[in-house]
Amino acid sequence: MASVTLAWPPVYDDSYLPGHQQEHWSPELETMASDRRNSVILTKLQAVVQWAYDRSGFYRHKWDEAGVGPHSLRHLDDLHRFPVVTKDELRHDQAANPPFGSYLCVEPGDVARLHGTSGTTGKPTVFAIGREDWGRIANAHARIMWAMGLRPSDTIFFGSFFSLYMGSWGALAGAERLHATSFPFGAGVQGQTLMAVRWLHEVKPTALYATPSYALHLADVAREEGMDPGDFGLRTLFFSGEPGASIQSTKRKIEDTYGGACIDCGSMAEMTPWMSNAECRHRTGMHLWQDVVYTEVCDSRTYEPVPYGQEGTPVYTHLERTSQPMIRLLSGDLTRWIDEPCECGRTYPRLPEGIYGRIDDMFIIRGENVYPSAIENALRRVNGFGGEFQIVISRTGAMDELAVLAEYDAGIAARASHDGDAVAELQTRLERELRASIGVRAVVALRKPGELPRAELKARPVPDNRET
Amino acid sequence: MASVTLAWPPVYDDSYLPGHQQEHWSPELETMASDRRNSVILTKLQAVVQWAYDRSGFYRHKWDEAGVGPHSLRHLDDLHRFPVVTKDELRHDQAANPPFGSYLCVEPGDVARLHGTSGTTGKPTVFAIGREDWGRIANAHARIMWAMGLRPSDTIFFGSFFSLYMGSWGALAGAERLHATSFPFGAGVQGQTLMAVRWLHEVKPTALYATPSYALHLADVAREEGMDPGDFGLRTLFFSGEPGASIQSTKRKIEDTYGGACIDCGSMAEMTPWMSNAECRHRTGMHLWQDVVYTEVCDSRTYEPVPYGQEGTPVYTHLERTSQPMIRLLSGDLTRWIDEPCECGRTYPRLPEGIYGRIDDMFIIRGENVYPSAIENALRRVNGFGGEFQIVISRTGAMDELAVLAEYDAGIAARASHDGDAVAELQTRLERELRASIGVRAVVALRKPGELPRAELKARPVPDNRET
Repeated sequence: MASVTLAWPPVYDDSYLPGHQQEHWSPELETMASDRRNSVILTKLQAVVQWAYDRSGFYRHKWDEAGVGPHSLRHLDDLHRFPVVTKDELRHDQAANPPFGSYLCVEPGDVARLHGTSGTTGKPTVFAIGREDWGRIANAHARIMWAMGLRPSDTIFFGSFFSLYMGSWGALAGAERLHATSFPFGAGVQGQTLMAVRWLHEVKPTALYATPSYALHLADVAREEGMDPGDFGLRTLFFSGEPGASIQSTKRKIEDTYGGACIDCGSMAEMTPWMSNAECRHRTGMHLWQDVVYTEVCDSRTYEPVPYGQEGTPVYTHLERTSQPMIRLLSGDLTRWIDEPCECGRTYPRLPEGIYGRIDDMFIIRGENVYPSAIENALRRVNGFGGEFQIVISRTGAMDELAVLAEYDAGIAARASHDGDAVAELQTRLERELRASIGVRAVVALRKPGELPRAELKARPVPDNRET
Repeated sequence: MASVTLAWPPVYDDSYLPGHQQEHWSPELETMASDRRNSVILTKLQAVVQWAYDRSGFYRHKWDEAGVGPHSLRHLDDLHRFPVVTKDELRHDQAANPPFGSYLCVEPGDVARLHGTSGTTGKPTVFAIGREDWGRIANAHARIMWAMGLRPSDTIFFGSFFSLYMGSWGALAGAERLHATSFPFGAGVQGQTLMAVRWLHEVKPTALYATPSYALHLADVAREEGMDPGDFGLRTLFFSGEPGASIQSTKRKIEDTYGGACIDCGSMAEMTPWMSNAECRHRTGMHLWQDVVYTEVCDSRTYEPVPYGQEGTPVYTHLERTSQPMIRLLSGDLTRWIDEPCECGRTYPRLPEGIYGRIDDMFIIRGENVYPSAIENALRRVNGFGGEFQIVISRTGAMDELAVLAEYDAGIAARASHDGDAVAELQTRLERELRASIGVRAVVALRKPGELPRAELKARPVPDNRET
């Protein structure tokens, strides 16, 4: 495993583990010079592009139209001639070719795991992950978690929701492959945080996986119980789902609170192994593990890579996925990349400020990606909604809160005059629909028809009252 | 794998899969005559008893006191001379030897997974499962799920909570080893059921794992959405956590609702591989997979096995666990066992009516085991509780509801005269403590001091208003 093999799909030795003191899981791959790495990447890229072209109507059609194909890839620079893939395209392709889309690229019988989005822009997307891919994902995550400083002697407490949220499952797969002890406790159910605090106190795990805001909430609950979160003995806290762990003030707050290292990682669920953006234990910004997922930080209009030092949107390409490989998936995130040495010796480019924004109107609530259009779609599915609404994001303690002000329609207004429950009943239906559609709880506050200010333009600005 | 090997700890070939049409995963093991099986069991039993005696202070001390040990096991009948282990003993041993107790029997560094109880009788119990055990558990569950009729071509939707609840994790491990497609969706969060219904409609999995009451709740929500649960196309529905799937009326209701086979399985979380009690696809009662976990149905006072045909309490012994092996763990459940042929050809004894009762006052709410003493412990931890309480169990729709009527103390009574929030605030604190301690939501209704009827005896009868 530690030597560089170029067979594709890659096969890893599942029994390999580095020595405890070793800094790198795959020293050669992680520290090679960039021209040599580029040739490794190109070889894998040519293989995955050929694989997808041969097996996926989605890619074949898209590339034929753009006049590119496996033959066009002679240098790594040729990649930017391939058109980007948007999440909308994936959704439409899955609607036309249910349930996995025409980009599955393995037999449905070889799918080991199904996950999905919560339907944040309407219809959910299904992630189908092949059995061999699942093994490679575990391997990649273990290798990257090793760089975070995690070792087989660590006990990792998973304080994250085990459901659609891909983060929990990918981190667990990595922990198992790393031969760490996993405590997949979960999160998200009322009252569970208090239980989590007691387990942390009881079992004294050495590492925590969660979202940054949940870690801060956990600390608040611990203090309410008279415990000092610093006493839990957590040495490594690694996070995804929110930008927080790369924001210096939040990072410091988490490290001061727990006395351990706060480490950021994560790209997108579609890109699993999503840890291909990840900090090492030196915490100098997320490394781009380019031989696992090849990332170009691109101009947000031309989708051509910007020079190091500049800002752009990550465009991701799988180098080890046979099932639903993503080739130039447009993230829509905002970041800045650099190519400077890190103390760890890895020669990957880095995102020194993490991922800090969006080129569209998506926002994140408790680790879930939410689009205003998804909220609108959900509201419009409910009879009685009047058509106007406004989104308000705030933070109570350490937890995000999502509120939706919505007008009811004339029918409800008429009913409300003689039926005192009409408005409350509509509120319940709207909250239920929002919860089912966007995957997070939203509080609905209903308004009379005409009461909300009208947006001048199609895009509605979302007031975000959280401090960052 | 299909041949009978007697090396211990057992090593299975992780690449083995039977042919699709094959009835048995391990034909020889599953259909052998009982005298031959008894000799297989005895060999494994001698090995696990020796293993535990050599590595566990808990067992060595307990057995030395009882005058038994590895030398006492010359026939299978000798086992009943070994004292039973109670859950209380395990809890006390873990309190004295935190966090895993003196019965771990592998190095802490070899522990792959931590799980635990929700502290149903006060302090939670920690389950530490070794890496190799986790592989054997997956193998055993795959083999048993094969008997349920599940195949690699199946897609299994997990509508169960992924947290402490061992059921979800054990079923998932089995599904992965079986090479089925797993969709670990989860359950337990508000609004999640509606999402589950939409995913079932969208992805059309062929199998469902859940608790019986949750499956019925899921059907209710589907119908509210205008869907017929029978259209989901579920062919196999397998259940644990509640007795329902063995109760003929519930079994029929589930099969009529979904049009698939309703299959019961499950012993105890401590006994993982907990599927060692499990029905085959013919659904004639749970087989006792005696070469995985050796089960004696015992007299509830002498703990000696009762003859086939009679009622007793299961006493379980691990035959393949190296980490925290349970040797004669007293379940406290009630069942009846028989040793009659089944159409499937397996020669294991069976529990034709499943597990239908308790020899103590434990009850089950939404798959969680709850003891009245745990509720009492939780209440007593909260300042303002007056000391008297009453538990009421009911069912709303398909879901269990737990209510606790509790008296407040004189201090709260005094405060309540000038502080309108005093009682409501106590209620919140009590509900929070109960949720954290027993792991399920309970509604607290507060009463004035002296208002509740006093119990004559120490044991309080729990009114259970659910119909079965």
